[in-house]
Amino acid sequence: MIQTLEDLEKRIAAIKPVDVEIMDKAQKRLDNLTKPLGSLGKLEMLASRTCGIQGRLDADVRKKVILTFAGDHGVAAEGVSTVPQEVTAQMVFNFLRGGAGVNVLARHVGAEVRVIDVGVASKVEGEGLILRKVKAGADNIARGPAMSVQEALAAISVGMEVARDAVEDNAGILGTGEMGIANTTPSAALFAALLPAEAALVTGRGTGVDDATLEHKIKIVEKALAVNEERLTSPVATLAAVGGLEIAAICGVVLQAGISRVPVVVDGFISTAGALVAMKLNPVVRDYCFFSHMSAEQGHKIFFEKMGLSPLLHLDMRLGEGTGAALSMGLVEAGLKILNEMATFDEAGVSVGA
Amino acid sequence: MIQTLEDLEKRIAAIKPVDVEIMDKAQKRLDNLTKPLGSLGKLEMLASRTCGIQGRLDADVRKKVILTFAGDHGVAAEGVSTVPQEVTAQMVFNFLRGGAGVNVLARHVGAEVRVIDVGVASKVEGEGLILRKVKAGADNIARGPAMSVQEALAAISVGMEVARDAVEDNAGILGTGEMGIANTTPSAALFAALLPAEAALVTGRGTGVDDATLEHKIKIVEKALAVNEERLTSPVATLAAVGGLEIAAICGVVLQAGISRVPVVVDGFISTAGALVAMKLNPVVRDYCFFSHMSAEQGHKIFFEKMGLSPLLHLDMRLGEGTGAALSMGLVEAGLKILNEMATFDEAGVSVGA
Repeated sequence: MIQTLEDLEKRIAAIKPVDVEIMDKAQKRLDNLTKPLGSLGKLEMLASRTCGIQGRLDADVRKKVILTFAGDHGVAAEGVSTVPQEVTAQMVFNFLRGGAGVNVLARHVGAEVRVIDVGVASKVEGEGLILRKVKAGADNIARGPAMSVQEALAAISVGMEVARDAVEDNAGILGTGEMGIANTTPSAALFAALLPAEAALVTGRGTGVDDATLEHKIKIVEKALAVNEERLTSPVATLAAVGGLEIAAICGVVLQAGISRVPVVVDGFISTAGALVAMKLNPVVRDYCFFSHMSAEQGHKIFFEKMGLSPLLHLDMRLGEGTGAALSMGLVEAGLKILNEMATFDEAGVSVGA
Repeated sequence: MIQTLEDLEKRIAAIKPVDVEIMDKAQKRLDNLTKPLGSLGKLEMLASRTCGIQGRLDADVRKKVILTFAGDHGVAAEGVSTVPQEVTAQMVFNFLRGGAGVNVLARHVGAEVRVIDVGVASKVEGEGLILRKVKAGADNIARGPAMSVQEALAAISVGMEVARDAVEDNAGILGTGEMGIANTTPSAALFAALLPAEAALVTGRGTGVDDATLEHKIKIVEKALAVNEERLTSPVATLAAVGGLEIAAICGVVLQAGISRVPVVVDGFISTAGALVAMKLNPVVRDYCFFSHMSAEQGHKIFFEKMGLSPLLHLDMRLGEGTGAALSMGLVEAGLKILNEMATFDEAGVSVGA
């Protein structure tokens, strides 16, 4: 468990850039396959970058693990969501029984879903649930900090540890996911503080609030930033002030992906907030991330524009849980199969440049 | 085999609109699953529309067949491609041996690839090849018509028949694909004539021609439209004048999808040209089509804008063969699994609207 910011900084300073020599070798092989140069677009990028991340031409993502973190948010009391807080815990049971969206899409691509309680308000137990509760819900960011810096570090540690465990179980690729009623609100606050951007630009409708509630939600995000203004001094301090426990854990997963040299597929709006904190802590992790989709949550677009990044899918999804990560893991695997299974021009006896 | 335009018109007049009552029922079930309303975006559309197309709530796309048609183009003699014409036949053998991009991606999603020679210039034979050659390559559209109207009807028939065969073999979903050196040129001519649009807007780099060749290619498209001007009197006459045999066959697949009530995943730029002819013949087939991806070939975007349609994937792909169709078939299946495998609020004991 990481105790201090110095400990964390020491650990993540060791993250190496992706191996560009291996990426070049992978691209050379791709260029020699029976297709016009570059004609498989982003599939080729997924293949070559995964090789660069894993540091080997025979990169392997057959074992896929999605880490879905659950946490509650005191800011739910401000009426920023139409959904009652008890649903966070109810959905944890739905994940454990395999009935949620992420379970269905994970099965579709052959991924395992691991569910972690890092901050659900109520006591939850169930077969398969990974109990790593740091705190029984983040505090109300409209009234003060979500958590202490110590608690944020603990939640980051949880993410790092479950990610490391998955890699030790041979996962070649990780996906992030989350469940936490009201968690688009702290995510919007993090984007506003860290990109930075105006609250109104990065605050959206979440599960589907009406115009009046959206206006109110924007004001709550602005209030959270004002109330916590003096605390927004560093990425971790900002995460502690206006973030959430599951968001901190996702930040930890992204950092560990860099340490363990595996690609991490970042799910939607909320997962991206966690990834943004990780990128602010160490910009090198950016290349370890594949951003799965453009969420229908409006602030996501601002993130991609400001960071010069682009997501893989544009399917108007806004469910979270890891649903987008699951679909995109399938694309990464497809890219590697292209690299490994397609015939070269020589093998196929195809003339040139076809 | 369809002999006359009247025969074709009679056959396709029988195509019924998709069943909107079934679509509504499917959407009602989707709305009752443990997720915010509409939060799985286009996956929900894929599920409900597939039900509407198949006319049943328990729509089934487990058996997936990609129909990849090969045909040559006399216009290759005008220097519109960097790739020699012999590559069409060489790639047919690559398909049959399972080494091409479409084979790899079809295996990834569990689809079968059927390869049809509807118009390769040279004689090709090989295990598994479906021999339905209508003509040994389309004629040079810069000098006259690609084929006669009779030949176009024959090629459409080939597409209809192999599509019908696939459905009789229990295919629940079809994908289109093609191989034909120089076939972005007739496709551009078809878009220019049928959308309509300026040749320069819908003509792109194909396998990757340089600026000078692109300029020349635009002039060839303009010349093809001028030379054939008096022939551009109907969708089938236009297809015969400036199209190609594999494009005509794809038009037939799309029409048959409407007749047989199965969804058809339209691959990229060239497949879309075939689908456009089908939509001009009977606009009802539009709802039977899922457009797989936005090709990097520039004219594709013009098609989507003019037709008010949007593709599923944005992966900068431009290979054809059915590669995009394969990936998107996986998304359609994912959508149906959401419909059938996710828990409802009642089943999961989840409170409301989560």
